[in-house]
Amino acid sequence: MTVTEPTTVPDTVTALDAARADLRARLLRDGVLVDIGSPGLYGRTGVFERVYGAVDAAAVRSQADLDAEVLRFPPVEPLAAFERTDYIASFPDLAAAVSGFAGDNRDHRALLAARERGERWESFLEPADLMLTPAVCHPLYGLLSGDLPVGGRTFDVLGDSFRREPSLDPMRLQAFHMHEFVHVGTAASARAHRDGRIASIRDTLESFGLEIDVVPANDPFFGRVGQVLARSQVEQSLKYEFVTPVYGPDHPATAIGSANLHEDHFGSAFAIRSADGEVAHSACVAFGLERVTIALFAAHGTDPDRWPAGVRAALAL
Amino acid sequence: MTVTEPTTVPDTVTALDAARADLRARLLRDGVLVDIGSPGLYGRTGVFERVYGAVDAAAVRSQADLDAEVLRFPPVEPLAAFERTDYIASFPDLAAAVSGFAGDNRDHRALLAARERGERWESFLEPADLMLTPAVCHPLYGLLSGDLPVGGRTFDVLGDSFRREPSLDPMRLQAFHMHEFVHVGTAASARAHRDGRIASIRDTLESFGLEIDVVPANDPFFGRVGQVLARSQVEQSLKYEFVTPVYGPDHPATAIGSANLHEDHFGSAFAIRSADGEVAHSACVAFGLERVTIALFAAHGTDPDRWPAGVRAALAL
Repeated sequence: MTVTEPTTVPDTVTALDAARADLRARLLRDGVLVDIGSPGLYGRTGVFERVYGAVDAAAVRSQADLDAEVLRFPPVEPLAAFERTDYIASFPDLAAAVSGFAGDNRDHRALLAARERGERWESFLEPADLMLTPAVCHPLYGLLSGDLPVGGRTFDVLGDSFRREPSLDPMRLQAFHMHEFVHVGTAASARAHRDGRIASIRDTLESFGLEIDVVPANDPFFGRVGQVLARSQVEQSLKYEFVTPVYGPDHPATAIGSANLHEDHFGSAFAIRSADGEVAHSACVAFGLERVTIALFAAHGTDPDRWPAGVRAALAL
Repeated sequence: MTVTEPTTVPDTVTALDAARADLRARLLRDGVLVDIGSPGLYGRTGVFERVYGAVDAAAVRSQADLDAEVLRFPPVEPLAAFERTDYIASFPDLAAAVSGFAGDNRDHRALLAARERGERWESFLEPADLMLTPAVCHPLYGLLSGDLPVGGRTFDVLGDSFRREPSLDPMRLQAFHMHEFVHVGTAASARAHRDGRIASIRDTLESFGLEIDVVPANDPFFGRVGQVLARSQVEQSLKYEFVTPVYGPDHPATAIGSANLHEDHFGSAFAIRSADGEVAHSACVAFGLERVTIALFAAHGTDPDRWPAGVRAALAL
């Protein structure tokens, strides 16, 4: 769910920043989002929720033929599961750990005294062995260790995703939701799932009146080694994004959905085997629910009652 | 959303623990919840989501006459807002802070080397100035600083709540959702809101086939000072809980909803004034959505299609 941003044309970056600030200001002014004082975190009003719910329902309808098993997870995941995904090696800058207070009355008095002196009090906390879930499907794989049935399994997973990238771009939130349709099976069934859902997702997003392109993409791997991994991901066509020109034709389009082949990354990490005895492969297609919702407000305005009839019909609004 | 537990009758505690373990085992075995390896955190299946959605919809219908303003918040809140609630003074043991990695390539290599050696790597993280939101209505008050209109304002807030209290009791989750109906206004209007909603909430929960009692309650204030605060809260009748005997008549009933008067706690902390120029008072009534849902499975069994017709009708299941 990231898009490569221009780094060599400063004028364009400035215009893009202005376009982002404009959209953010409009969403706040028209009461779609509410500023809660932290970049990339917003309160969401009734009109936002109305569109968001309609987007999610339409996304589910578009994938109903999968007859996927429904699973929902909390916004935090156990550290042990997080470690097996190796996320901290690839995306340390996006990760978020949870800590808590495990002290007694005396420790609490010391914490409050430090706070009273205007000092930070996080040093009184200890790791809680929990991470904010960075990718909605991550908690799934730990449940599948062992042998899959013939045909693999397909899941409908909706949940919270947290990525530590504060931004004033309203299309880049720190806390957001993805509705993902995940298949775990053989190399062939995983690829078939990824490739087979692209048309229905594209059709669904286009039915919302959005201009959609499907493009090869890479995850935002960290650092110098990450640049190599990102290039390799694009060269192997492992990830596609559904992008829409939220900020107009002069700026890079923004991803609002994705279709990813994980190969045996999770199968290997979580000891999952397909029915043919091989290490399982997995694939995941995803709607970025807040991104689709905000793209709709950007494209059609902040009053859904005045959106084109066809768009309202597609969203059952 | 807590209930005082017996501390003086060890035999009863043992039987209660067994009752909790029984319910947890049944919910896992019958595929309502999925164990993700951390006490108080679960995956939720389709049947859970079906009932959970029905509970939430019925809760909203029951409070529709409030015509409340809808607001939704992310599962994290800015530290600055958290500090103003003074939560760390009263409930340090339940609080959860977020930290992230802000280093460069070299720091990342050091983190990975420590991890490779089997050491903890949290020391490479820094406070992210975010807390997991402990109470769904907390982020609201910071938006209201200043003067309220005549009549105050009433909000419909649904969101994530996180409290660091790992437990094998399926009625005590670390991550859960509350649907809250919050009024901010004068001392009189806040009290009228709190008292005025009790009947409709009780009726709604009883329509689900649950045996409900409304009892004075206290929040789980920390430590020795906390015991005094808790007693005072009960003596002043600031908090009521809607409790149901999930574990049978021989064990304490469990809270599945609450009705709280905050007096001027938030009005004072967030500089909110009512239209008469006084410090605003607030009150909040809340459905604990997972607790209501699990209480329903405990009372009626794990197959909603076999629940009594009246219960299914009340839930529009």
